[in-house]
Amino acid sequence: MVSIGVGDLDKVTGRLAGRIAKTPLLSSPSLDDVLGTRVLLKAECFQRSGCFKMRGALNALLAGLERGDDRGVLAITTGNHALAVALAARETGVPATLVMPQGGPPLKRAAARQSGAAVVTDGVTPKNREEVGYALLEERGLRWLHPFNDPDVIAGQATVGLEIVEQAAVHSERIDTVLVPVGGGGLIAGISEAVAARAPHARVIGVQPETADHAARSLRAGEVISVASRPTSIADAANHVELGELPWRVISERVSEILTVSEESIAKATWALWHHAKMLAEPTAALPVAAVLERRVDLASDKALACVISGGNVDAIALAPRLERWRDGELAASAADRYSSTA
Amino acid sequence: MVSIGVGDLDKVTGRLAGRIAKTPLLSSPSLDDVLGTRVLLKAECFQRSGCFKMRGALNALLAGLERGDDRGVLAITTGNHALAVALAARETGVPATLVMPQGGPPLKRAAARQSGAAVVTDGVTPKNREEVGYALLEERGLRWLHPFNDPDVIAGQATVGLEIVEQAAVHSERIDTVLVPVGGGGLIAGISEAVAARAPHARVIGVQPETADHAARSLRAGEVISVASRPTSIADAANHVELGELPWRVISERVSEILTVSEESIAKATWALWHHAKMLAEPTAALPVAAVLERRVDLASDKALACVISGGNVDAIALAPRLERWRDGELAASAADRYSSTA
Repeated sequence: MVSIGVGDLDKVTGRLAGRIAKTPLLSSPSLDDVLGTRVLLKAECFQRSGCFKMRGALNALLAGLERGDDRGVLAITTGNHALAVALAARETGVPATLVMPQGGPPLKRAAARQSGAAVVTDGVTPKNREEVGYALLEERGLRWLHPFNDPDVIAGQATVGLEIVEQAAVHSERIDTVLVPVGGGGLIAGISEAVAARAPHARVIGVQPETADHAARSLRAGEVISVASRPTSIADAANHVELGELPWRVISERVSEILTVSEESIAKATWALWHHAKMLAEPTAALPVAAVLERRVDLASDKALACVISGGNVDAIALAPRLERWRDGELAASAADRYSSTA
Repeated sequence: MVSIGVGDLDKVTGRLAGRIAKTPLLSSPSLDDVLGTRVLLKAECFQRSGCFKMRGALNALLAGLERGDDRGVLAITTGNHALAVALAARETGVPATLVMPQGGPPLKRAAARQSGAAVVTDGVTPKNREEVGYALLEERGLRWLHPFNDPDVIAGQATVGLEIVEQAAVHSERIDTVLVPVGGGGLIAGISEAVAARAPHARVIGVQPETADHAARSLRAGEVISVASRPTSIADAANHVELGELPWRVISERVSEILTVSEESIAKATWALWHHAKMLAEPTAALPVAAVLERRVDLASDKALACVISGGNVDAIALAPRLERWRDGELAASAADRYSSTA
């Protein structure tokens, strides 16, 4: 294991056994037809809390308890990390406080509350949320659980990579390439560690929205590059301004490439996952499929490509109208097809 | 095996091996919270063709070829059976002709065409479709593949039941109850056969919309009862007027109960499967979950309950607005909760 100390992966696996879902590695021939190549879908949308983040949050809390740290935890986030921390905290009996700006996704706030977390929103804005969070940390003696800049969190996310390698082997498939959505970098850092340890021949490739391409720029520059302001991609969980320092240390060593995809491709890939693979993926989770749609990945036909479908925490009813044109495109394509339509 | 001759189940399993997906048996703690009980979800939405029907169609075509019958096949259906026959026919090299009334679901017609079937729609109405179909059968020397009144089709659907029993055993769970959507009866007939053979202690219970309750009435009456006109439930794949004769012979012997659920519950269960289990289930596939939502199933807490999520062939974008009130209900419930929302 590398210098950031993600610890022994088997120990992490043991710690999380029975507490997280071993999500299925699915194939969808119908999606494959659309993509023109075969992909394996690591369906983290079926993970507890609706997203891979449960792995990292739970590992961090359990590892803390093993070290004798039973402070309540605080998370500063609008999104998937909040849901994961709320659920992991409930399960481990640790009180959770979540600082979530007003105007964030109401369904995520609702889910966090339903998990029993104290949700702090009044007067919280995207700008002052860290300030509010730090004040609470001091005042209440809480432990800050960072969504990605934490070795225990990265180690938890690594189990996604362990499972992909193991599940592919069960089906006698040798994983050649793993495509991973990139936001703050915790997921791809963990997966890179796992793949380096268990399938060192395989490539791990990141995928970002064109409008939130800080990691792609960082990899080219050889140092952490920030984008000027918070991105507003439809892939909302990827709207970070920069990689965390710890993920960067792994990514710079392990990840060969970070691709960027258009907003159009992300929406089309989301529709394809809904309609063809029947997975309620969130747009961020569709980034890898968007890269395949754009034919950005060179693949030998006999090699296995895995796409990490990172989560499904999306308001499907609000998002549906934004995907309508892809459905209509599919209908238009088939109306002009070559088969008889008359008796 | 009973008198209808669904054949040796192991032979069917062998015939379909590698040609159909062994769909996962998933659990969703988030859905369990909503339901107040634990359920296992047999995710046939991930089956090839988007629904369990691929099993029966493929088994019928392959069994026919084994008997030397290589005629083209004809199916008269607007829906999931059409998609399955189109795909199974392409795969086995048998030409398929589908009689689909005008005004049916355009996405299903598009998918059938994309699979290479000849789709006959011009001048076809829900009323004359059988007449059109029978004329084509004679004229072109085709084989009629009935969606449920066929022993090979029922035998194919039985593999859903075999897999549930086998997959539950892997997790040391003993299946006590299997809830199955009921339309024409092919799925529940097949599953009943499989469960009787492999888990005879378990109950198989059917679920229908209140507005399409012919099977529930039939079971009470001890004979096949038809409803007056074609039902119009949101669970569209369950909109049949009566059970097929062959399924009825199995159901009358094997199925202890057929529950009925309201349109409201079906919509709410569909939303719950989308939002909590992240499965793009079609409303018909949500019938079992609707029965659990309505607390119609008595369960010992240590027993395993499986819900067959029969398919995912739905226009999600068109359906989304009809599910909106359930999302809003969830938000309203959480807004009035007991946790602090102030710093």
